[in-house]
Amino acid sequence: MTRITAEPLSPEGFADYGQVIDCSGAPDKIINDGRCGRYHDRAALDFVGGRAGVSLFRSDPVALPYSFDLVERHPDGSQAFLPMTEHPFLVIVAPDLGGHPGRPRAFLTTPGQGINFFRSTWHGVLTPLHEPGLFAVVDRIGIGENLEEFRYPDRFTIDPPP
Amino acid sequence: MTRITAEPLSPEGFADYGQVIDCSGAPDKIINDGRCGRYHDRAALDFVGGRAGVSLFRSDPVALPYSFDLVERHPDGSQAFLPMTEHPFLVIVAPDLGGHPGRPRAFLTTPGQGINFFRSTWHGVLTPLHEPGLFAVVDRIGIGENLEEFRYPDRFTIDPPP
Repeated sequence: MTRITAEPLSPEGFADYGQVIDCSGAPDKIINDGRCGRYHDRAALDFVGGRAGVSLFRSDPVALPYSFDLVERHPDGSQAFLPMTEHPFLVIVAPDLGGHPGRPRAFLTTPGQGINFFRSTWHGVLTPLHEPGLFAVVDRIGIGENLEEFRYPDRFTIDPPP
Repeated sequence: MTRITAEPLSPEGFADYGQVIDCSGAPDKIINDGRCGRYHDRAALDFVGGRAGVSLFRSDPVALPYSFDLVERHPDGSQAFLPMTEHPFLVIVAPDLGGHPGRPRAFLTTPGQGINFFRSTWHGVLTPLHEPGLFAVVDRIGIGENLEEFRYPDRFTIDPPP
């Protein structure tokens, strides 16, 4: 059993895995008579042989420390998780080492943050930390399985940040 | 000044204007070892000469009764509003009467509901009722203005449901 400490989510730390989707920085445009800021086109959507769609995921929450051995990736499309609550959630990713995942990393979001995984990025399954574990998901709609799973020979346990 | 009473949002009531995006009914698929339900492809995305993108909108909230005279529509694309909080929000729409909007209708969401406007649907600007007025928005990314505005000669005031 290997222990991994969750890191605060930041665009720099997450850059190899995808985008952080939040309202950091100035809005790209002010709309609605000055009442609303638009943070424009913050996810690199990338689909092969399909199209973008909006689905909802409702997941049971998990608790930290959180133990797992399964990761997955979607070879045909990026996947964005947009929380429909103000609760932080856990994001688990792993680098690709020639077709299989390396040592995982874990990131803890702050309220108001979503993420988008690059196409083919190894990641853990959705891990909300609070009820309701409700997310809008923008991913590929199309034919084909678009799923590759990998089970590590040993389990990892994610600890909260110190 | 014409008064309009907000209605609870339902798929039937909203059918002429777009989709309600929520977890009603059974999930289309159970994923993640049984821990998560997927409510699949719940928005009819429809873009002309562009592509889907994910943006964030952060808007000042409004209060009921809410008075307005401006609506808009996007001739080149659908637009989905997905709240990143558990607060209800107000959705204002109007039927099209040969190129200009008719009498508005107003819908009040319940927590966990988002909406997607059909392409070219007349609608009010984003009207959260609580801080933070934070939404993920899936709409058209592309060249062109993709915006038509209409100002009614008289103002409307939206009252809360009785």
